[in-house]
Amino acid sequence: MRIVLDAMGSDLCPVPEVQAAVQAGQQFGDEIILVGPADRLTPMLAEAGGANVKVRLVDAQDTITMEDKGLKLALKAKRKGSKTSMAVGMDLMLNGEADAFVTAGNTGGALATAYYRLGVIPGVERPALTGLFPVKGGYCVVLDIGANPECKPEHILQFAVMGAVYAQRVRGVANPRVGLLSNGEEAGKGNELVKGSFPLLEDSGLNFIGNVEGKELFGGEADVVVTDGFTGNILLKSSEAVAKLITDVLRQELTASTRTKIGALLAKPAFANIKKMLDPGEVGAAPLLGINGLVFVGHGRSDARALVSAIRTARQAIEADLLGALRGAIQERLEQIHIPTDKVEEI
Amino acid sequence: MRIVLDAMGSDLCPVPEVQAAVQAGQQFGDEIILVGPADRLTPMLAEAGGANVKVRLVDAQDTITMEDKGLKLALKAKRKGSKTSMAVGMDLMLNGEADAFVTAGNTGGALATAYYRLGVIPGVERPALTGLFPVKGGYCVVLDIGANPECKPEHILQFAVMGAVYAQRVRGVANPRVGLLSNGEEAGKGNELVKGSFPLLEDSGLNFIGNVEGKELFGGEADVVVTDGFTGNILLKSSEAVAKLITDVLRQELTASTRTKIGALLAKPAFANIKKMLDPGEVGAAPLLGINGLVFVGHGRSDARALVSAIRTARQAIEADLLGALRGAIQERLEQIHIPTDKVEEI
Repeated sequence: MRIVLDAMGSDLCPVPEVQAAVQAGQQFGDEIILVGPADRLTPMLAEAGGANVKVRLVDAQDTITMEDKGLKLALKAKRKGSKTSMAVGMDLMLNGEADAFVTAGNTGGALATAYYRLGVIPGVERPALTGLFPVKGGYCVVLDIGANPECKPEHILQFAVMGAVYAQRVRGVANPRVGLLSNGEEAGKGNELVKGSFPLLEDSGLNFIGNVEGKELFGGEADVVVTDGFTGNILLKSSEAVAKLITDVLRQELTASTRTKIGALLAKPAFANIKKMLDPGEVGAAPLLGINGLVFVGHGRSDARALVSAIRTARQAIEADLLGALRGAIQERLEQIHIPTDKVEEI
Repeated sequence: MRIVLDAMGSDLCPVPEVQAAVQAGQQFGDEIILVGPADRLTPMLAEAGGANVKVRLVDAQDTITMEDKGLKLALKAKRKGSKTSMAVGMDLMLNGEADAFVTAGNTGGALATAYYRLGVIPGVERPALTGLFPVKGGYCVVLDIGANPECKPEHILQFAVMGAVYAQRVRGVANPRVGLLSNGEEAGKGNELVKGSFPLLEDSGLNFIGNVEGKELFGGEADVVVTDGFTGNILLKSSEAVAKLITDVLRQELTASTRTKIGALLAKPAFANIKKMLDPGEVGAAPLLGINGLVFVGHGRSDARALVSAIRTARQAIEADLLGALRGAIQERLEQIHIPTDKVEEI
């Protein structure tokens, strides 16, 4: 397996990326292709022990930053000969030199670069950003978390098909329970998009459990939850913000007096699980589903451990032939849509 | 002031309601009108010491339960002569016998009953469910949290006007900062509704701070946040679910060993603030904004203390003439919309 790691992704790049490339090379024995400014990376890689493992360095002098957006971002993503680490890395995939791409950089940038350079799986109308949400007892695959603010029911159906394939192939869930995010559990609740998507999901052959709310999602009752990119993005960011608010207040209160400080010290093992649950490093990275290639995006706060975990997820996806399974599932879905040609004559 | 308290609202009704009526009567010296089944309530009220305070009992033999929905709910809400505690209580307001209505019951039921019996403020197209979200350093008024799954930009503008009046008059915020919930802080981000609402809010004369995400909302950077009822409901329920997940895991972990149990005991004062922050009793109740009358809905889990707090909020709204201020603000807004009549002739 040959996995590209964007050296210029994380908030503290390229330090965690260099460490992760060496660690992943040692751990998995794969070729890690580190893409970024070679002049900066070469001495760092030597220092980190990169000489002893299979790390291939590919030069890319430009980067997509968190500040890049709009037309500037689109140009960096699309332009032939673009020298951003994302563009160079994905071009390696296009040329058959790599099997998967991992970055902890600008999610919109990764999506745009992947969309323009790798394209979408035939039949996919909209690629989706996918998130892994920590829930009771594990994780839930949620999509779309931001790529498509406006969606049609057909898009939601495709998200469900792709999310279920991902949950099954990579997350190891035998028969993924798929929920539709809504403002009420009952069938019939929802906005127009939800009401239009519900019957498509019911007829999809997927293990559709109906509408779900926050209670079911975070209660671990669904393996995959689908929604439009506007709602999914608000769900993601508000969940993160609530978790931050609670842990901030807790931290502040625990250091308020000597008594609570001693208590916190004794109770430390209890806080470890909360921290682990909210740690992006546990998840590693989530895929851009619908892109015609394996692209994984991790959290900007990723450290070397999180990046190694992201590379592990990418390896699992390659091993499980995620891309082939996605192509097959989308194709199967397209074939189920019969256009009643005999009706045409009658009109 | 004469405040109606729905005796059949909370999950444990009517016990907390009877206690709250007596306590509020003692504390505020107002007439509390307790509406519910008189045969059940009379002995309970006598036992709770209701003889010594101004609690007026008004009989209502029917109730709207959490299970009532759809047509059944609409009939209970609308029908002339409906004997639900909500219908009887709101009819008292209509007849000028009461100044405000407080319930911890079915929110949809309260909205439907209020809509059919009290109507809307002239010029208001859609009444909104309003929530008070615990955020860093205080609370944020969020609307709509569920009444209108589909909205137009004009509705969002009206929510903003009403939310700002509420924050100012009742919450005591001098110049409320109004944010528009979106999937990105930058202007131009959002779905079609957000993009359409943004310029209306910019031109509104309100203290509009632009698009906000979960970070700004829960970080306490806005006093009022507006959104459609679908997104607002998902925001509300997912925030509650995330808070529950974190506190559940924490509770479980803290009781996992003797060491952590002792730690938790010492750190107890620190947990008090978290508990207080997430306690619906702290907030009391939130208003149905846009209804032509003061109607407050508290959490189903409300105890007597939470209901007294809800009655206190209702008193503040009466004192501040919230309804008059809302009517004035909506009227002012309507007068700003000039229909260019000279254009009509030209067509």
